Amino acid sequence: MQKISDDIMLHGTCYDDLRVLCKNIGHRLSGSPQAEKAVEWGQKAMEAAGADKVWLQPVDVPYWIRGEENLKLKFTNSDKYVEVPMLSLGNAVGTNGEILEAEVIIANSFEEFEKIPAKDVKGKIVFFNYHFRQDLVHTFHGYGDAGKYRWAGPSIASNKGAIGLIIRSVSTGLDDFPHTGAMGYKDAKPIPAVAVGNITADLMEQEFKKGAVKAQIMSRCRMIGTARSYNVIGEIKGSVYPNKIVVVGGHLDSWDVGDGAHDDGAGCVQSIEVIRTLKALNIKPRYTVRAVLFMNEENGLKGGLAYNDSSIANKEEHILAIESDAGGFSPRGFGLAMDESKRRQIQSYRNLFMPFGVYDFEHTEGGADISYLQKRGVPCAGLRPDPQRYFDLHHTANDVFEQVNHRELKLGAVALTNLVYLVSQYGLK
Amino acid sequence: MQKISDDIMLHGTCYDDLRVLCKNIGHRLSGSPQAEKAVEWGQKAMEAAGADKVWLQPVDVPYWIRGEENLKLKFTNSDKYVEVPMLSLGNAVGTNGEILEAEVIIANSFEEFEKIPAKDVKGKIVFFNYHFRQDLVHTFHGYGDAGKYRWAGPSIASNKGAIGLIIRSVSTGLDDFPHTGAMGYKDAKPIPAVAVGNITADLMEQEFKKGAVKAQIMSRCRMIGTARSYNVIGEIKGSVYPNKIVVVGGHLDSWDVGDGAHDDGAGCVQSIEVIRTLKALNIKPRYTVRAVLFMNEENGLKGGLAYNDSSIANKEEHILAIESDAGGFSPRGFGLAMDESKRRQIQSYRNLFMPFGVYDFEHTEGGADISYLQKRGVPCAGLRPDPQRYFDLHHTANDVFEQVNHRELKLGAVALTNLVYLVSQYGLK
Repeated sequence: MQKISDDIMLHGTCYDDLRVLCKNIGHRLSGSPQAEKAVEWGQKAMEAAGADKVWLQPVDVPYWIRGEENLKLKFTNSDKYVEVPMLSLGNAVGTNGEILEAEVIIANSFEEFEKIPAKDVKGKIVFFNYHFRQDLVHTFHGYGDAGKYRWAGPSIASNKGAIGLIIRSVSTGLDDFPHTGAMGYKDAKPIPAVAVGNITADLMEQEFKKGAVKAQIMSRCRMIGTARSYNVIGEIKGSVYPNKIVVVGGHLDSWDVGDGAHDDGAGCVQSIEVIRTLKALNIKPRYTVRAVLFMNEENGLKGGLAYNDSSIANKEEHILAIESDAGGFSPRGFGLAMDESKRRQIQSYRNLFMPFGVYDFEHTEGGADISYLQKRGVPCAGLRPDPQRYFDLHHTANDVFEQVNHRELKLGAVALTNLVYLVSQYGLK
Repeated sequence: MQKISDDIMLHGTCYDDLRVLCKNIGHRLSGSPQAEKAVEWGQKAMEAAGADKVWLQPVDVPYWIRGEENLKLKFTNSDKYVEVPMLSLGNAVGTNGEILEAEVIIANSFEEFEKIPAKDVKGKIVFFNYHFRQDLVHTFHGYGDAGKYRWAGPSIASNKGAIGLIIRSVSTGLDDFPHTGAMGYKDAKPIPAVAVGNITADLMEQEFKKGAVKAQIMSRCRMIGTARSYNVIGEIKGSVYPNKIVVVGGHLDSWDVGDGAHDDGAGCVQSIEVIRTLKALNIKPRYTVRAVLFMNEENGLKGGLAYNDSSIANKEEHILAIESDAGGFSPRGFGLAMDESKRRQIQSYRNLFMPFGVYDFEHTEGGADISYLQKRGVPCAGLRPDPQRYFDLHHTANDVFEQVNHRELKLGAVALTNLVYLVSQYGLK
């Protein structure tokens, strides 16, 4: 494990790989031309890492585009609209380029919204002003808590007669970056739905204390249809158990802003690093090791589904699936979603991981792309990096390569490679 | 402890305090006008935090100034000098504005340098090209390893007849920021000594493979003399043991580049946050709690010395001294420099700290400002934040407020306040 760490810290390519992915290709929403380029890049990077076999697995993905969009606000004591930073939520409908203008009503939570009579919602734009809970030390808990305003907010607002939605971004940031991210309409008439950054949301909150707020939403975002895309897979055949697989992955698609650096370029280049390191150190795993760059985690999860379907069709046995999709920050642990005896086996490696700053094996989350595998009983694990900065950047124009630290990213790859190494040598019983 | 965490994460002022210190005052080398302003700021901030008593403790500090400086290099296949980013090492002599021109000889380590005959060193500028060991997971180990080229390099070069020194910065960065930092001449004729960033050092390393390198050093840095400055101290009197003290601190001075944000504005504002939080939550510590902003950690340690001298003169009993001087990053643990039974007591709190991401109580470092206390047997502890980014920024123009994450900084304050709380309630036996 020390050799693995030394090799990655001194000779690892994940940081340089991430620079290429972020700076030569950039963001890469499913179905976009950049996603296509990212697939080509991933295939080449996996080959360069020395995988015995590299292939593309077809995935049909939704293709949503943003297009031109803006949001303008007018406050009580002003007679003119001012434009504020905004992003439509992913998968949302737009206004077809028309201006959707209405009075805005504020609700600080779903509970508050429930108490507003339907007649006061009808024809209005709703502003869900729910604050990300900064008191929660683990930011992913805060994300689970506030995220529902993004996922479910549009339907809840629409079902009460709202014609548009603005949400305070699901964000720990002290800035004005709006955060996009997936939403879906559930038994509801689709309405435009946009996010504003925390500074704009604070301003709106103040203005509501003084009087009325009006908004104009203009957006051309729309779902175009389906596109053919791919998961990128690289593999080292197991020397003893070629038909039993340890898989490690991240997702290749990203939102259509920023570089998709932490989310989830990091997980992709770290997964490629696993392959590179095993080959560079001439480690011959007893079980097959596979790295997967999943497509379409952000707005459909079709890559995770296709991988699972293919693995059922091919009667593959997965002994462990690991995902890195929580940012390229210093690793702290692994979530372990598996039965108790297997958890105990991995927890027994804790002291082996301590020299690399990895100590926390108490939690149980896996990852979205491997959730279909998890549902049918495959033991799953999720890398747990330090979570403090993630939701400042997540789904924003600020999730760029420059936000990733080379040592933190590499240490994450060390943690992943070491877990893959141990399980691909000793199995998981 | 949860209430302390919630209060800091939701209402803490340390991040805003740091913005003021960094952006309104900026860097603040001992003896400088900015250091004087920082003392005033610290006194006001400590009062605003609600300390029962705030005072300034006189400290006579060395006052070194940088002034204009530059470094120019000429390579084998070129006929002209090119200027490269550089910083004189702190406390070094300059060239009095003259151009010091000489051939440069390279040594990758002290061992290599030993093997070079003195006649080949005489009259030359030495380039110590020692690489920071990126393989060491804990970067402070790498700092200890590479740091000697900065601390001792000038004397070692001078004693063999060198007339100037260039070092590869003590840096994990993949950039060209030069890192300054303290050096001293030990039984050696003072010679100018400067640092270059890693990119320039890489370039020089390549050029030495092709042929000769010449350099021109021009610098006006010099030690001006001594100046009167102060430690800033705030205190909450213990309700049961007013004469027994738990002290927490960081250092107020910084190098004369950047904002001194991580080093060590962070430790100062976190120490003030300890006082603020105890007062805000109306916690009445049984032992006296004191926050100290030490002056002159960087190039003299006179603040730590003055504090210790005063505490001896006043027959004060310190039951614990804690320092935060390793950056405002996510906390991971505390180094514990104390006897075994006291270590065990604090280690027994480990599970109480786990919800705040603080798990590591196995190491033994305290901190520079409290090292005089430690030497005479005061139990000492040092906050251990995540160390991966620190030596990218340390002592550079890039150690600015923008590099500090609000949640990481606050979590460090949570860790400090919780340790102070536990020990000021339950003692340390």
